[in-house]
Amino acid sequence: MKFCTACGNTVVLRIPEGDDRERFVCNSCDQVHYVNPRVIVGCLPVHEGRVLLCRRAIEPRRDYWTLPAGFMENGETTVQGAARETWEEARGKVRNLDLYRVFDVPHISQVYMFYRCELVDGAHDVGPESLETILAGEAEVPWDRIAFPVVLETLREYFADAPSGNFPVRVSAIEPHSRRRDGA
Amino acid sequence: MKFCTACGNTVVLRIPEGDDRERFVCNSCDQVHYVNPRVIVGCLPVHEGRVLLCRRAIEPRRDYWTLPAGFMENGETTVQGAARETWEEARGKVRNLDLYRVFDVPHISQVYMFYRCELVDGAHDVGPESLETILAGEAEVPWDRIAFPVVLETLREYFADAPSGNFPVRVSAIEPHSRRRDGA
Repeated sequence: MKFCTACGNTVVLRIPEGDDRERFVCNSCDQVHYVNPRVIVGCLPVHEGRVLLCRRAIEPRRDYWTLPAGFMENGETTVQGAARETWEEARGKVRNLDLYRVFDVPHISQVYMFYRCELVDGAHDVGPESLETILAGEAEVPWDRIAFPVVLETLREYFADAPSGNFPVRVSAIEPHSRRRDGA
Repeated sequence: MKFCTACGNTVVLRIPEGDDRERFVCNSCDQVHYVNPRVIVGCLPVHEGRVLLCRRAIEPRRDYWTLPAGFMENGETTVQGAARETWEEARGKVRNLDLYRVFDVPHISQVYMFYRCELVDGAHDVGPESLETILAGEAEVPWDRIAFPVVLETLREYFADAPSGNFPVRVSAIEPHSRRRDGA
């Protein structure tokens, strides 16, 4: 951030009075510009024990498989956002959305929220951000071609939880790859 | 938003190519500026069946009671943010944080996440944004002086759940007051 959104003059990074961390503050009108984490909402749509997966048509991770998910928009609920993304990416309608998995990804200031849900009639098609969509049982999931750690973890847990029919809400943080490889 | 944060020229509200909703787009450098919902993280700190409440020193709702909560910051997890707010507002240290309550507030593009947790040693004090902090059992909660609907609902549910010791994670949306009064 270089310029103030309110007056167009330059901003500087400094700690505002009464605050305890650096913010972008306008050199001219003194407006403080807060930058906060973003929420990514998604679904784990299920039909007869199989889950809906999308092969990505866009970067990052083009050609790898993901659950339908994307940035939450202003004016919608997390449930509405998760359902919207499932329609946009996989032309799937969903119902009975239950919060299942929350991931904090602090190094990129993101929070993921995945809702477990029913895929109505098992129907799906290919949205503009996907190359292909499938319903996959545990043996059919392309486990070595999953786009993101949060998706891999959610799928693993789903197939581990499914036999019991008990799906507790879990919250955990994803660390950067480099730190994980260092064991830190 | 009136000016581009990247180049300082004016922005216009229009639908970018490949998108389906209006965004602020720079008239000069074409940068698209996304605006997304904010996350508010908070705690429901419990000690021997009593909950930690703060009487607000600041607007909005100065002098009304709240649970410790505030805007999630970049670079932290939801759990870290909830613990930080509890320290800042009530000088309480917390442990064993379990996600308990998620509220969508779409008309102001906010998502609340409250963590049920233990207040270490039952210790608390008054942070700079509070006038007073208390540990309150159900009969001592100032029920007619609660600052926000999300706090009132979380407290009601906690005292309803407590006898069973079963605290399911709940997600729901809060509508604007005017709509609720209209019955819409």
